[in-house]
Amino acid sequence: MKRISVFCPATIANISCGFDVLGLALEAIGDEMIVTKTEEPGIRISKITGQALPLETMDNVAGVAGLALLNQCDYEGGFEIEIHKKIKPGSGIGSSAASAAGAVWAMNELLEQPFTQLELVNFAMQGEALASGVAHADNVAPALFGGFTLVRSYEPLDIIKINTPPELYATVIHPQIEVKTSDSRKILKRSISLKDGIKQWGNVGGLIAGLFLEDYDLIGRSLVDHIVEPVRSMLIPGFNEVKSETIKAGALGSGISGSGPSIFALSKGKETAERTADAMSKIYNNIGVEYDVYVSKINTIGMHKI
Amino acid sequence: MKRISVFCPATIANISCGFDVLGLALEAIGDEMIVTKTEEPGIRISKITGQALPLETMDNVAGVAGLALLNQCDYEGGFEIEIHKKIKPGSGIGSSAASAAGAVWAMNELLEQPFTQLELVNFAMQGEALASGVAHADNVAPALFGGFTLVRSYEPLDIIKINTPPELYATVIHPQIEVKTSDSRKILKRSISLKDGIKQWGNVGGLIAGLFLEDYDLIGRSLVDHIVEPVRSMLIPGFNEVKSETIKAGALGSGISGSGPSIFALSKGKETAERTADAMSKIYNNIGVEYDVYVSKINTIGMHKI
Repeated sequence: MKRISVFCPATIANISCGFDVLGLALEAIGDEMIVTKTEEPGIRISKITGQALPLETMDNVAGVAGLALLNQCDYEGGFEIEIHKKIKPGSGIGSSAASAAGAVWAMNELLEQPFTQLELVNFAMQGEALASGVAHADNVAPALFGGFTLVRSYEPLDIIKINTPPELYATVIHPQIEVKTSDSRKILKRSISLKDGIKQWGNVGGLIAGLFLEDYDLIGRSLVDHIVEPVRSMLIPGFNEVKSETIKAGALGSGISGSGPSIFALSKGKETAERTADAMSKIYNNIGVEYDVYVSKINTIGMHKI
Repeated sequence: MKRISVFCPATIANISCGFDVLGLALEAIGDEMIVTKTEEPGIRISKITGQALPLETMDNVAGVAGLALLNQCDYEGGFEIEIHKKIKPGSGIGSSAASAAGAVWAMNELLEQPFTQLELVNFAMQGEALASGVAHADNVAPALFGGFTLVRSYEPLDIIKINTPPELYATVIHPQIEVKTSDSRKILKRSISLKDGIKQWGNVGGLIAGLFLEDYDLIGRSLVDHIVEPVRSMLIPGFNEVKSETIKAGALGSGISGSGPSIFALSKGKETAERTADAMSKIYNNIGVEYDVYVSKINTIGMHKI
């Protein structure tokens, strides 16, 4: 195989209580990448559609992630990458992760899988570091593994795939305001009370248990964030209204997607997820902020050939 | 039924990363209680063997927990309680929880189960408050539910039973030094770094996932405590040696049981758990501290009739 076309899913990181450790992959939103083996060594970004992003390899997250992989293997050729962006950078649903993870996943396929999924996460994290200054894994892990993932530890990197209940749907609304990942990290407090910590790991435990038990109510009860949401939500106009209206619409719970400004909700069943989308949309129609809104099944396979 | 004899299991709270939220019940260690319905109202502790504990109802954790239940029901009679203590108070394996939970479980059986398990946890927590000044649930929950339990939230109280992998064994050593729960709470810091918090909820997620996936290695990797163990372990002589020797003996991981001084280890298979017990014993033989040591399967049913 010389060329591959890949679907690179958008992802929701944090998932309320799981700051920096939990993430999930979406089915309805994602980029497309076409990666081709070349005789010329190195990585060339030949084309980007949908967004104005740098074609220079070292300035592009896909380029940087790809080079990290290339540096670790014997292959003497190179790759040409074409990126068709559907995920808007800065939206909070893993735009850079999709590109970084997509590049290394495609390259690994073309090289006949010399690397494990965990190694691919490591390479893709180099791209994330370029995008946000922090080599986080909570978007690239679900983009590569699919479904829900837990980053149990960064040193050493340890990623666990968590069960996805079959009727779970995500609703995501992206109000078109700019919140940079690097800015939204700056406003976080460096210390937290032990009391809030206990509540947080109680909810992380509850969410993981709810996913394995396929207990939708437990999933909903666990979608609580005592630490990051109270601070970051101040950067997102309409956040509190969205939270309360999504619950009224029947969603299990909601929170900030990644570092925002997108807000996600999880629901049991597509109908409720769509009702939740309507409720979210109404709020931004009233405020007068432009938005994109999506309803999606959880993508349980991650990156895949198209 | 007028009288019931009950096995009241010892329990391990916290389980490394799960401070205040995780607990498990043991099969090989527990008290026995005999509870009898009486025409006379109120609760009378008629006999305690094995330990010198107060017979006065309001000074006894079983009495206080029992009264909490009695105040919530129509029953006009009372109960007589006989307690045969096998679990030493102050050992860190849920001595007060066994008595408090045992009393309310037995009474609920004799009254033909008017209360849910969750309500029983609530009553038993009143006994815990008498014992340690804090109405914690991480010992009474596994004593009542059996297996591994998660206290997802205290307000409202929300308890989740977690899967127990079939080959999991606990080793517990109780070095005979005194560490009071109230003292060991005092030395905890009231705030933690966000960084340590993230590691902690990563491990809680990993432990819960490991229990559901029956992935023994993942359970072991997740038995890490970045927050409480570094402080509390200073109160337990030989703690660091025990930790390293248990791993050499093949245990999955180890930590402080409850607020100590007992130390627990989890192992895959009875043989490894017994080898771990030998390794732990050797250390206290060398230090010259008296100890009790136990090897136990996880008790998946909690309180039960004998």
